[in-house]
Amino acid sequence: MDPLNASTDYERIFHPERIAIIGVSGKGAGFGARLFYSLRAIGYAGEIFLVNPKGGQLDGHEIYESIEAIPGGFDLAIIAVAASAVPEALEACRLKGAAAAEILSAGFSELGTPEGMALEKQIMDVAARGIRVIGPNCFGMYVPKSGLTVLPGPDLSREPGPVAFSSQSGGMAVDFANMGKSTGLTFSKVVSFGNGVDLRETELLDYFGQDMQTRIIAMYIEGVKNGDAFFKTLKKVAAHKPVIVMKGGLSAAGSRAVLSHTASMGGSARIWEAILKQANAVQVFDMSEMARTCLAFTHLQPGTYRHISVLGGGGALGVAAADAAEAVGMKIPPFSPDLKTRIDDLLPRPGSSGANPVDVANPFVAPQVLKDVLLLAAEDDRIELQILITLFHHYKTIAQMMGMPVKDIVPYNELAVGVAEVIDKTSKPVVLILNNPKRGLDHMDVVEMIEEARRAFLKRGIPVFDDLKEAMGAIGHINAYYGGKTDE
Amino acid sequence: MDPLNASTDYERIFHPERIAIIGVSGKGAGFGARLFYSLRAIGYAGEIFLVNPKGGQLDGHEIYESIEAIPGGFDLAIIAVAASAVPEALEACRLKGAAAAEILSAGFSELGTPEGMALEKQIMDVAARGIRVIGPNCFGMYVPKSGLTVLPGPDLSREPGPVAFSSQSGGMAVDFANMGKSTGLTFSKVVSFGNGVDLRETELLDYFGQDMQTRIIAMYIEGVKNGDAFFKTLKKVAAHKPVIVMKGGLSAAGSRAVLSHTASMGGSARIWEAILKQANAVQVFDMSEMARTCLAFTHLQPGTYRHISVLGGGGALGVAAADAAEAVGMKIPPFSPDLKTRIDDLLPRPGSSGANPVDVANPFVAPQVLKDVLLLAAEDDRIELQILITLFHHYKTIAQMMGMPVKDIVPYNELAVGVAEVIDKTSKPVVLILNNPKRGLDHMDVVEMIEEARRAFLKRGIPVFDDLKEAMGAIGHINAYYGGKTDE
Repeated sequence: MDPLNASTDYERIFHPERIAIIGVSGKGAGFGARLFYSLRAIGYAGEIFLVNPKGGQLDGHEIYESIEAIPGGFDLAIIAVAASAVPEALEACRLKGAAAAEILSAGFSELGTPEGMALEKQIMDVAARGIRVIGPNCFGMYVPKSGLTVLPGPDLSREPGPVAFSSQSGGMAVDFANMGKSTGLTFSKVVSFGNGVDLRETELLDYFGQDMQTRIIAMYIEGVKNGDAFFKTLKKVAAHKPVIVMKGGLSAAGSRAVLSHTASMGGSARIWEAILKQANAVQVFDMSEMARTCLAFTHLQPGTYRHISVLGGGGALGVAAADAAEAVGMKIPPFSPDLKTRIDDLLPRPGSSGANPVDVANPFVAPQVLKDVLLLAAEDDRIELQILITLFHHYKTIAQMMGMPVKDIVPYNELAVGVAEVIDKTSKPVVLILNNPKRGLDHMDVVEMIEEARRAFLKRGIPVFDDLKEAMGAIGHINAYYGGKTDE
Repeated sequence: MDPLNASTDYERIFHPERIAIIGVSGKGAGFGARLFYSLRAIGYAGEIFLVNPKGGQLDGHEIYESIEAIPGGFDLAIIAVAASAVPEALEACRLKGAAAAEILSAGFSELGTPEGMALEKQIMDVAARGIRVIGPNCFGMYVPKSGLTVLPGPDLSREPGPVAFSSQSGGMAVDFANMGKSTGLTFSKVVSFGNGVDLRETELLDYFGQDMQTRIIAMYIEGVKNGDAFFKTLKKVAAHKPVIVMKGGLSAAGSRAVLSHTASMGGSARIWEAILKQANAVQVFDMSEMARTCLAFTHLQPGTYRHISVLGGGGALGVAAADAAEAVGMKIPPFSPDLKTRIDDLLPRPGSSGANPVDVANPFVAPQVLKDVLLLAAEDDRIELQILITLFHHYKTIAQMMGMPVKDIVPYNELAVGVAEVIDKTSKPVVLILNNPKRGLDHMDVVEMIEEARRAFLKRGIPVFDDLKEAMGAIGHINAYYGGKTDE
């Protein structure tokens, strides 16, 4: 690998003012046209130039017959022509002074054919002459701040945030970007780099490490090009920003699949585990875990949370909480008899328990009571974080009896305000669990109410998870990361 | 534990024609009244008698002043009076000839007080004189066929099915029953038995083992009363029906939580793992995994599925599939060059791959093409099961461009019909993955479309999972169970 290129103009790459899309059918089909529509839909505000040898128009937008015919230069090229035409198009973009090109086209080394390999080599040669390449065989970049979007991505969020994600897989990049709107994750940059002939994991990691807009770095890796450089960079970056890594192809079978996907070399599960641990990076095993972990890092202050309180309904939740906590090295210390009694006094009887975990026994306990319990629980000096499990779906029964829409009777706004006050007063974070077993067609109103509730909490900076065990796992990763840092 | 009671009249317990609810407030509040409303809402067709010393009416329904005042006998009592009044009420029900009583009331041994213990002992004494007791501190029973429902449960499905579930936790029972409507799980019986002073895990397991309406047995266990009897029964039943067990409180902390929840003794994680393995029971670690596993057992024929094909979009899915398959001992054998070429010829180029996993490269490949690929893949004699990963959420983009509702343009019905034909022709099961990262408030139309699609597949007997890795885990459990059986 070349030394990390300090002169790359990332500003022009991630916030381009002028974009050329090379390979746009006037019929509106194909990757080029779809990305054009997506950029318009998401509201990219810069200039877009379209290119196709046949010329013509797309939705009233002129199509230039050649790259050379574009008036003036452009910052970023998006190339979506047939593989065989890519090297020439790339060279033309370089001559136009583009800072980078993202190449959506497939048909290179991932085919495993001599022709594919040769074409990819040609791309590398052009890149070496002075244009950065993202791809080929990728879905591009999503940058909420500038309105750049991955393929297809017309409806991704424009709200910028702290998470950067680099992915060898385009599908993973699109899925993860899409998950932002539902989970509350917000992004600085998402980069799908496919075969990664030029700009790829190590250099992006280094850049994200320096990027002021990025606080948390997530990576989907199938294989790295230069293990030593990657490890060195990972160690350097993870020392000051959390880096969360999902390594695909850890199994023997998965490793073979990696070869045909992005033609990169894998590495055994044990080696990866050791490398990531040594660099104090966080290892996750699927994209949902990645999303939860990023969300936890987004909303929780740096530090460790080893002693927690859990407040929920049903004794089995307490059992599940204890199991889940112990699995990630967290403790749910029982409250003192005095504190327990004061909490007991707030709760409906019988069936409730003011110990830790607190069993409120009834899903309809008023937000004010839950708030008061959280305030009391925070008085225990050992408690560093509180988990509140809501059971809002049970309101459906009441809504039906009252003949009212369920979202009108669930006090999620009041609870969100109350929880935010608790966090303010106690300086201890509260994590919310929005449990919902009612997800079928008959309960779309419950599903929608849960999403409204999620938004109410997220907008107050309160992280929300679907499941207690999954939330504990995410918090466990925070403890591992910050615990690992202080050990140094 | 007493010898298993062969004379218990389970027919009267699970399909009661007359129910008495003891402890119903005329104001409609409390467990008794709520269960009354729930029974009416779900459509229980038998007679219901309400009892409260104050008499009066609830919604036009007469309230008797005493149990003795009820005209004639009843099959099942539902007791929801204060703990101290439970033994006397139970005795009165026994004298009325009730086959059983479910006691919703809490305030017994789970409190850990001498009073609670003493009251529980009194219940046991009455039970020993000839009435079966479910509870106390439980949420009752859900039996779709008879319209019996757990608390609150007014909107659970009335469709009967093969899964029986017994649960020490009421919350788990309600959640699991609720999950039926969204996951497609259908139940023969769900029993929440709380403190389990009488009828509990071992006897229910034995009964479910003999019950003609039950094919699959699921259990949430916090602790068992008699380890030897439980193990003996488990081994006997698991020899002819799959038994899926979630043990709560496996950690040290969880074990302490169990004590305050249902006052039962736990047991270490290692012991439980060994016991369950030896009995060829299936161990799961959360309720979602339980639901997925039951769904797989519901729809897949007895047998093992060790060689599979995977058909999806995106190379990373192939990598993930390979990793997930290997983790549960399954193989995704590459197709012969000839078969690969024939599949390649059906797929869009470039970016696709006809190897196994098959990467269709495009989420909009027509159902007819997917069907043809499945038919070709089934020609490989090694393949025992096929997994089809759909990416229906991508249609949202097209729907927006066309100005049409997304559910009108997604060809899920056509695909469901096609897949059902493939299963018919090839006699090899197909498992569907309905992946959806678009779950936020902006995408409620996608969420609803996905649920419509889920129903279209489920009603044709095709199991549907949200996630590939999770589906593989469920199939892995089937392999472990039937593989374990043949080893004997």
